[in-house]
Parts: sequence; structure tokens; C-alpha cells
Amino acid sequence: MLRALAGERLAVPPVWLMRQAGRYLPEYRETRKKAGGFLNLCFTPELATEVTLQPIRRFGFDASILFSDILVVPHALGQKVWFEEGEGPKLEALANSVELSRLSLEGLHGKLEPVYETVDRLSSALPRETTLIGFAGAPWTVASYMIEGGSSKDFQKAKVWAYGDPDGFQRLIDLLVEATSRYLSRQVTAGAEVLQIFDSWAGVWPEPQFRRWCLDPMAAIVRRLKAEHPEVPVILFPRGAGLLYADFAADAGADGLSLDTTVPLGWAAEALQPKVTVQGNLDPILLVSGGDALTQAVERILDRLAGDPFIFNLGHGIVPQTPPEHVAQLLDIVRSRPS
Amino acid sequence: MLRALAGERLAVPPVWLMRQAGRYLPEYRETRKKAGGFLNLCFTPELATEVTLQPIRRFGFDASILFSDILVVPHALGQKVWFEEGEGPKLEALANSVELSRLSLEGLHGKLEPVYETVDRLSSALPRETTLIGFAGAPWTVASYMIEGGSSKDFQKAKVWAYGDPDGFQRLIDLLVEATSRYLSRQVTAGAEVLQIFDSWAGVWPEPQFRRWCLDPMAAIVRRLKAEHPEVPVILFPRGAGLLYADFAADAGADGLSLDTTVPLGWAAEALQPKVTVQGNLDPILLVSGGDALTQAVERILDRLAGDPFIFNLGHGIVPQTPPEHVAQLLDIVRSRPS
Repeated sequence: MLRALAGERLAVPPVWLMRQAGRYLPEYRETRKKAGGFLNLCFTPELATEVTLQPIRRFGFDASILFSDILVVPHALGQKVWFEEGEGPKLEALANSVELSRLSLEGLHGKLEPVYETVDRLSSALPRETTLIGFAGAPWTVASYMIEGGSSKDFQKAKVWAYGDPDGFQRLIDLLVEATSRYLSRQVTAGAEVLQIFDSWAGVWPEPQFRRWCLDPMAAIVRRLKAEHPEVPVILFPRGAGLLYADFAADAGADGLSLDTTVPLGWAAEALQPKVTVQGNLDPILLVSGGDALTQAVERILDRLAGDPFIFNLGHGIVPQTPPEHVAQLLDIVRSRPS
Repeated sequence: MLRALAGERLAVPPVWLMRQAGRYLPEYRETRKKAGGFLNLCFTPELATEVTLQPIRRFGFDASILFSDILVVPHALGQKVWFEEGEGPKLEALANSVELSRLSLEGLHGKLEPVYETVDRLSSALPRETTLIGFAGAPWTVASYMIEGGSSKDFQKAKVWAYGDPDGFQRLIDLLVEATSRYLSRQVTAGAEVLQIFDSWAGVWPEPQFRRWCLDPMAAIVRRLKAEHPEVPVILFPRGAGLLYADFAADAGADGLSLDTTVPLGWAAEALQPKVTVQGNLDPILLVSGGDALTQAVERILDRLAGDPFIFNLGHGIVPQTPPEHVAQLLDIVRSRPS
């Protein structure tokens, strides 16, 4: 994984899957039951370490991503966050920039201490050949949850705020750049070897706002991290960026770009891969269907991208309905293929 | 509108808005209450005509789009479709290709007769300068509702079907190509002057499936329509197509392409506009926020796209929370601007 991110071409690419520790695994569902709420699972180092390790034990992925949630950052800034079973996250929504006074950086590291402890434990517990990835949500995606009070169909509240009061919205984004930089930096101190930043809702803006609210804040975080930890590679995932993936490859300063399922492989090879290591981009629904369609799609990705710096992954998180046997099938194809 | 679609550069571009007849208008909410259910509104020519005309009376848009719903086609093929208040559409879902036997083209025109009558009435009632647009959903988007039984977050059932049984799924798509072609052709006979095909969920596939399930079926419909009505322009809206908008411009045979909000304007001007008339692509949420942000965004679109064949529109449908005054503000900017 580290060699791929350093720009090496590898005969067999490293492979891990977004949300590889998750509900599709019976052992995860067991541990989650024990934990009570979802945030308890994130904030109990023993349990968070256990679920992070489960997919490594079962499948031997080349990288292990810290089990946590992007909303621990608003929680650590003082916003109320909770998870209702089967309903997704809920937050006490911010209505406008005046309410930014409810948030503070002061308690940040204290509240996130259990996450750092999980990273530390993982750093010792993982096999030496398994790369430990730390992560955070990108400022725009996290801000959207903070304003919408949960997930959203059209991001109306967050967008109305950003369009109507761009200076106030910039203050929220700046606060998140600061908090996320500090958070990720501490994950490195605790043992993370690679960092990934998830902008799951990047694909909803016109170009000028995309640059201002997605690309610029992520690039600012990368600069901060590179200043403090120049040796630690950073992967960005601006999901849905379309053509603007090219701007990320050119301007964000990251080592890797995680591609969503819709990114055409030929274009990625031509426009992105000469500049950054690319990661992706199997449709996670193919892991539900399995069979020939899965085999063909995996081989197509390997044919187009594995000849240059590349990490095999999905285009989005694995879904709970995925049969674990299909994950094993995927790993077989990626690893047994003549290069 | 017709001149723009024929490739003319116009000093003031034509303007209409997707879902311009809708819940943001108090007069629409009134009529809808009278109609009872949503499908009743679509299938009662007097009321469907009334709501189609409302935004023309109020704002004098350059084009008027038939008020209907993309799900009248599965309904006309024999699938049960209903709308629950505040919940969106529901359908008695198709589980697999065996269940295609539940569908038939035989009753198609009979069941769609009220729509044709609405088009006919509109054709007489509209001011001569207002272009009448007929429309339908694209095969993939309509198929996704037919299989998911409503709207969906990740299209898992529809994708698992398409990946696991592409031949069976192709039969559903072919049936929809046939039904949609016949439906649109009859709209022309009844008086539609332009046709638009909406593929609202095009942006969820890897490239090979995007071509097979979105681009090819829409191109097939365009070929059918061009054979029967060579004089009638067709606009395609593959929402979320990203880079693959370029393939649509090159290969689909359409006269116009409707751009979603994320399409960068400079690229659209360079890669798409030399081949087709482009339409779009204001973020509909800007019509909620209004103010300077709206003005600037409208002017930016006009600056980049209005010098070549262009129709002003949104990047997606207008939302119910839109203040009608902001629509008036938008029209003022588009029409009063020195060219």
C-alpha cells in the first residue's frame, strides 16, 4: 500500500475495501450488539479495535482502516450527535453562523482521545504487512450533516446557508479545516501510516462552489498535514467530482485519489494516474450480485489501472447485504491474476 | 426555443424551468387539492392542462412542459403505481425477468389517452410563442422505479438484476424503449413540438453499464422518433453523466442536452456546445436563496453559454420551497441583460 502510494507499479496491487469492517460481517453485528449505541462502538477502544481487526483476520486485506465515524468531529466540537437504529445519524442542527458560537476547538483532543487510543492499539495489534489508515470526513460533507441535522436529499439548508452567507459558511469550513487537521495529525502520532479524507457529498455543487467548499478545504488540510508529517501519504475521496477529479489530481497535493464508480477507467488512466496513485472503483453492488459480472468488472479495472500506481478498492462503501464469500472471490481474482 | 434547438445563437436565450408547474406555486397546490391523488391530476386533462398553464400565465416562460409523471408508462404497461402523500411514488415491484409477463404494450395508448388529450388541449390553449414540450422518463430511470418499487438510495435491486441477469434486464429495457417511443410519438401527433427524455438516475453506473442501460436505449428512442418525426427536436437529460455527457453529445443523435448543476461551464462550452444545443444548469437551490448569489450564478451561466446555442434552465427540478418572486428575479436577469 505504501509503495503504491509512493508511485510504484506493483505486480499485484494492494487491496482494501471502504467500510470493510461493517454490517455484512456476522462478527461485526455481534460486537455492535455488545456495544449498545453506534457512538459507543466508536468510542470504546477495545471494541473499535476488535471490529477493525475482524476483516483483516478473515480476509487479510493489505490495509486496515480505523473503525470510527466522520461525525466524531462535530461531536468533539460540542455539537450533539446521536445515531438511531436504522435511521442514520442525527445532529442538533446549526441554523446559521451565529450558532457557530456553540462550537469550540478546546475540548477536541479530550473528546477524541478514545479514537487515538484505538489507533494506538491497532498499531500494535495489526500484522506488520498491514497498513493502518486513519481517516476523517471532509469539511463540506461534515458541514452538511451539521446543518441538515442528518443526511439529506438535496442539501437545501446547507446550500442556502452557503449561498446566502458565504462568509459565515466559510467560518464553519475554516473551523472544520482546523479541527480535521488537528484530528488527523494526532492519528498519525498515534500510529496511522496513511490518511484518507472522505468528501462523500462533493458531487452536488456548481464548479465555483465545488472549488471553494470541497477542493480548497481539502487542499488546506493536505498542506497542514504535509508540513507536520511529510512522510505520511494522504488519499482524497471527492465522491461524484466527475471532471473535477482532474483538478484534484492537479491541485490538491495529495498522494492518492479514490475514484467513485462512475469515473471512466480510460480517462482515469490518462488524466489522473500520471499525477497521483488512483484507488477504486468497483461498484459495491457487484459484491452483492457476485458471479461472472463481478469477475469481469474486477478484471476490467485491473486491465486498465493496475499497470500504473494503483490500489484496488470499491467506488463507495460495501453494503450490508454483501455475502462475505463474494469478498473472498474478489480477493482471489485480484491476487491470483497473472500480472 | 425551436430556433435555439435548430442551432441558432440568440441575443436572449429561451428560458423554462424543470418542474415549473409544481408545489412552489400556490395555484398549483389549490388545483392539486381539488384533484385528489397525484395520478388523478396527471390523468384529468382539464386539471393537467390548468397546472401546465399556471406558470406560463404567471411568468411567460418560453416553453411549457406537459404536466405528467414519468411513471405513467409503467402504469400503462399494467404495473400498479400509486402516490402516497409526502412519500413519493410506490409501485408493485418487479422481482425478476419472469415477472415481465405482467407487463404488456397492448393497453398502452388506451391508458395514456388522457395524457394525449392534455397535450392536444395545451396545443390550442398556449400562446403561439410558447413552445410545447412533451416528455417521458428514460428506460433506466423508469426501470429502476419498476424494480425498486419506488425511489432508492443505492439502486441495489435494480443493479443486482442488471448485473446478474443482463439478458432479462435488457428485455425490460427494450420493452421500455418500445413503449416510450410509441408514447412520445403520440405526444407529437397530439401537438408536442419538442420532446425531452429524463434519465434522472443516469449517474450511478460504471461506464460499460452506463452505455448499455442509459446511452444506448436513449439513442434508440431518438432514432425511432427521428424516423417518424424528423422535424421534432429531442433533448436528453442524463443527469449525473459527468464526463460521459461528451459521449451523449457525440453519439445520441439528440438536438439538445440538458446539463445538471455539476457540469463545468467551460467544459460544456468547449466539449458539448459545438455538437448540440445545451440547456441548463442553475442549481435549483439558488432559487430558494435568491439575492446576489442567484444574480451572479445566472450571469455566470449566460456569460459562458449564451453566446452559442443555449436554453436557460435549472440543473434539476425546482423545489417546493422556492419563493415565486425568485423565479421572477431570474427571468428579469435572463431577459433584461444586454447581449
